[in-house]
Amino acid sequence: MTEHIVRSYDADLEALRRSLAEMGGMSERMLGDSTVALVRRDTALAQKVISADQRLDNLQRDVEERAVLTIARRQPLANDLRELISAIRIAADIERVGDLAKNIAKRAVAISGQFQPPHRAVVGLEHISRLVQAQLKDVLDAYAASNEQKAMEVWRRDDEIDALYTSLFRELLTYMMEDPRNITFCTHLLFCAKNVERIGDHTTNIAETIHYLVTGESLDMNRPKLDTTDINVEAVTGR
Amino acid sequence: MTEHIVRSYDADLEALRRSLAEMGGMSERMLGDSTVALVRRDTALAQKVISADQRLDNLQRDVEERAVLTIARRQPLANDLRELISAIRIAADIERVGDLAKNIAKRAVAISGQFQPPHRAVVGLEHISRLVQAQLKDVLDAYAASNEQKAMEVWRRDDEIDALYTSLFRELLTYMMEDPRNITFCTHLLFCAKNVERIGDHTTNIAETIHYLVTGESLDMNRPKLDTTDINVEAVTGR
Repeated sequence: MTEHIVRSYDADLEALRRSLAEMGGMSERMLGDSTVALVRRDTALAQKVISADQRLDNLQRDVEERAVLTIARRQPLANDLRELISAIRIAADIERVGDLAKNIAKRAVAISGQFQPPHRAVVGLEHISRLVQAQLKDVLDAYAASNEQKAMEVWRRDDEIDALYTSLFRELLTYMMEDPRNITFCTHLLFCAKNVERIGDHTTNIAETIHYLVTGESLDMNRPKLDTTDINVEAVTGR
Repeated sequence: MTEHIVRSYDADLEALRRSLAEMGGMSERMLGDSTVALVRRDTALAQKVISADQRLDNLQRDVEERAVLTIARRQPLANDLRELISAIRIAADIERVGDLAKNIAKRAVAISGQFQPPHRAVVGLEHISRLVQAQLKDVLDAYAASNEQKAMEVWRRDDEIDALYTSLFRELLTYMMEDPRNITFCTHLLFCAKNVERIGDHTTNIAETIHYLVTGESLDMNRPKLDTTDINVEAVTGR
């Protein structure tokens, strides 16, 4: 704050958006790589994801600091202030995506020496992870293009992810009941599935931030739920 | 931002700290109540926790908005800027604690009709939750008193929580292997235990923010780990 950087306000925003694009790309790769590491039991790839997370954390702190300094230095009015607050929020969501991907990678290491359960168990996880990867990519593209409509499409599609998570949760419990040797492995898969579902929640958070950024209004209605996601489904999966 | 509220800067900070104290108190109650709801299978109490979360979310958004507006309006210098950034960070951590407590409450509802597993399984969870409740209370007191030393004590004690979580994780897997009827219930307890451990992580985040607030320096060294928490422990628990 004691420095007096003479630089245009637009350049500050542009630099923040570039950092967010870098963070977004990293988080996409981390989710993709952690899933491949889990499916192929590739501990080297898992370690790569684990190491990458530190850089993502540093980038997030950096975006937060720069955005706050810009707010303090320039006293922005409504539109620009919204741009800066959105950058802070989106950076925080991306950082959380990285944490969750790192946790999947750690579990990939954990189960690499475990009893091999039915391959179907891993297929379900791979499927839901691919869908969430597409959601993450789409919402980051929507942010880069300030495309509110595209962001809302991502937001609405999260229901599919939730429904898939619910059925995967039940499936994994079944494998555990069938053969106790599956329990440790499937427990890790349950946590991985939960992590993927939570990454899906972060993509909807980002979609909500884009809505706020573009329209100036908070999206405070609750996300519509599928008919099937009633209290009983919540009861089974703890969503 | 178009309003011109004539109010002292100190009054802004004081109001933020009051909101944070209210949020902190709420999050403590939510963790305590969700644990009691789980142990006693009290679904009414669980529902109370689930409803309380919305208010905590609103308070967090409110703290964030007011802190950012104060930054934009007053152009604070280093010390005061740190106070405002800390308020934003701590509000975010408390909000996450509320989310995790809400998830425990949802699981308390989920397992209320399930097969009753060995009571020991629930005792372990109750124990770790009590310790984390004490950590949360201590770190919030440390924030209210700007007591950096007390915050660092909380930070260091998180190792105990991690060690307990590891042993609880193993214990729950054992019950699942002993009797498949325990699987669904114990899976929910595993997620609850993970939630409690993550609340512990948020208390250490808050402790780190207090360190930054008081000293002006980031605590970027990693938290010291117990000798036993090596890669193998991580491998088992996915920490």
